[in-house]
Amino acid sequence: MSQSSLPRIGILGGGQLGRMLLQAAANYPVETHVLENDPECPAAHLCHHFTRGDIRKEEDVYNFGKNLDGLTIEIENVNTAALERLEKEGLRIFPRPSAIKTIRNKILQKGFYREHKIPSAGFFVTHSLEELKTHEYFLPAVHKIGEGGYDGRGVQIMASAKDLEKGFDQPAVLEKKISIQKEISVIVALDRQGRCTAYPPVEMIVDPVLNLLDYQFCPAGLDKNSSREAADIAKRVAINFNSPGIYAVEMFLDKEGRILVNETAPRVHNSGHHTIEANHCSQFDMLWRIMLDYPPGNTAYILPSVMINIVGAKPYEGQVHYSGLEEVLGIENCYVHIYGKKQTRHGRKMGHVTLLGEKREELISKAKKIKETLLPVVLPVK
Amino acid sequence: MSQSSLPRIGILGGGQLGRMLLQAAANYPVETHVLENDPECPAAHLCHHFTRGDIRKEEDVYNFGKNLDGLTIEIENVNTAALERLEKEGLRIFPRPSAIKTIRNKILQKGFYREHKIPSAGFFVTHSLEELKTHEYFLPAVHKIGEGGYDGRGVQIMASAKDLEKGFDQPAVLEKKISIQKEISVIVALDRQGRCTAYPPVEMIVDPVLNLLDYQFCPAGLDKNSSREAADIAKRVAINFNSPGIYAVEMFLDKEGRILVNETAPRVHNSGHHTIEANHCSQFDMLWRIMLDYPPGNTAYILPSVMINIVGAKPYEGQVHYSGLEEVLGIENCYVHIYGKKQTRHGRKMGHVTLLGEKREELISKAKKIKETLLPVVLPVK
Repeated sequence: MSQSSLPRIGILGGGQLGRMLLQAAANYPVETHVLENDPECPAAHLCHHFTRGDIRKEEDVYNFGKNLDGLTIEIENVNTAALERLEKEGLRIFPRPSAIKTIRNKILQKGFYREHKIPSAGFFVTHSLEELKTHEYFLPAVHKIGEGGYDGRGVQIMASAKDLEKGFDQPAVLEKKISIQKEISVIVALDRQGRCTAYPPVEMIVDPVLNLLDYQFCPAGLDKNSSREAADIAKRVAINFNSPGIYAVEMFLDKEGRILVNETAPRVHNSGHHTIEANHCSQFDMLWRIMLDYPPGNTAYILPSVMINIVGAKPYEGQVHYSGLEEVLGIENCYVHIYGKKQTRHGRKMGHVTLLGEKREELISKAKKIKETLLPVVLPVK
Repeated sequence: MSQSSLPRIGILGGGQLGRMLLQAAANYPVETHVLENDPECPAAHLCHHFTRGDIRKEEDVYNFGKNLDGLTIEIENVNTAALERLEKEGLRIFPRPSAIKTIRNKILQKGFYREHKIPSAGFFVTHSLEELKTHEYFLPAVHKIGEGGYDGRGVQIMASAKDLEKGFDQPAVLEKKISIQKEISVIVALDRQGRCTAYPPVEMIVDPVLNLLDYQFCPAGLDKNSSREAADIAKRVAINFNSPGIYAVEMFLDKEGRILVNETAPRVHNSGHHTIEANHCSQFDMLWRIMLDYPPGNTAYILPSVMINIVGAKPYEGQVHYSGLEEVLGIENCYVHIYGKKQTRHGRKMGHVTLLGEKREELISKAKKIKETLLPVVLPVK
């Protein structure tokens, strides 16, 4: 059969999540495979076997998966018909295609929270603009399309009746607008034996324009009860998906102190990047432990941390150069992760920085400095 | 010229040191290259460009290096004639070929310590068995061949006159035998600006048969003065080699409390493996910082640690399987690194485990358990 007796694990997608997964994989006896269209993607050179193909095409995904022992994803936008065939044939998929399908459709996702009594904003399903307009009394609310929305696309805020015209004339959810006090996220690990472990909650600040995470603190500024409640809710989400893997459960703490789930990603996630240096076991290490049937690692944090995304910005578009890298690496306990993307463009995640330190205020002020200093730029042609 | 504007850094050798270097490299904007004969070596699949070739052949090393921006080594046994040509042509080599040549010849290495007043055991150079015999009065001593010895080969202990016959009839050093209290090692980083940083000393226990490191504790059980002295000596070694890079300076604390340098490796080293999880900046990260002209990282340790080598042992020889892996990964703050070698054999370094914890006694007892539990075995053919 195979030349190697190592378990063969594949990743659908070859971006930064795949890259960091592969950095962690090199600690274990595992043969790694990546499926991705771009042979120069961040993860391409770090796997044992790179396969060029489209993660959204059924035959590409099926052919990639059929000789593997396990499969995971970098992104939800993958061909689930192929995954369902592979699962039927016995392949272990982290997360299971059923979880991916539920999560990437906002209508199914909201229904899942309701069914499992997981606190989340009240909502209606709307199928047309006409139907949306019958819910004027429910405003202020947020209208989100069922399938295809991401990073702020497919989302409209409905503050008052005049906004209803901007709604979507397709299946969508109309979600009660929450008075947000804080945005938090909890990374949870669920293994094949049902052991479920949560990382300490992190607190996020999101760029209102790009809807990309800007800074993230760990541990979140929550009281003990809220922190425990957030971890409990996140675990219930993972357990009810009934699918081993890593989940990022993004939640709101509203102004009345309630914790409500916003959305879940069934995979390693931006809000867990700090765990590489700030926690004893990183989210990437944890996913390998789950996929290779090892016991879960220690989710405790070593020191408080702040994580800063390095995002492409105007006017820079083209071959990237990192300005300020040396200065940022001179900051004590500052860890830089550059993802190896060749081109920068507005809004593209190019890397991240994690900074460890005792004091929250100091971390915040240094994070601002890092954000201003480390920039993906394009050098003028000489 | 090059399609990529990234610095191109090469590694001579593709073993576990290269593998761990490449895991760390993926954080930075760098294009990685490996030269190695075995295309299935531990580092082969983790670099951007793998070149098959012999690190001991001048043309292979020269051709590999001539299009790079920097070069480092995994092992001292490389072709230095090629490195000298490359250095003359402007290539940055970490360490410089002059340092490699001094270190891999025991006569030159001992002369270097004497010249730079670095404390080390007293010695004579002997050129023949005849000459050796004239130093009977100097026993007990250790006879070490000038070039070609490693891992216990090329070393003979001369306890009394009758051992002189076992000496080497070739250029060698006869070193005064030290009454060893402890074996310690200090990893030092020297950058191109001359900044020199030492990691906290580690304490080693060596297998008397294979001469392979068995356990290693950090921080070493030294009083403050000895600890500072060890770091100072190690820094002087690095500075006097006048060559940026990482050095592992192995030293003895003798029974009179003196610290004496035993030998130096001019590269990332087994005695620095714990720094991946136990220190804020690992030795591998540190070498990239040096090679890419970034500031040095923080060498402080996060928690005390013990590091255990996983070494192939009789009767197992053949395709490796790791017995006890799951059990060991169930120990809190236990980190496993399996190097991806396909075949195990007696004495081969197959991986290592680092364990973090507060209490030295607990670390030692768990280390013993890990050593007995995690075994590279060969499964019977079904």
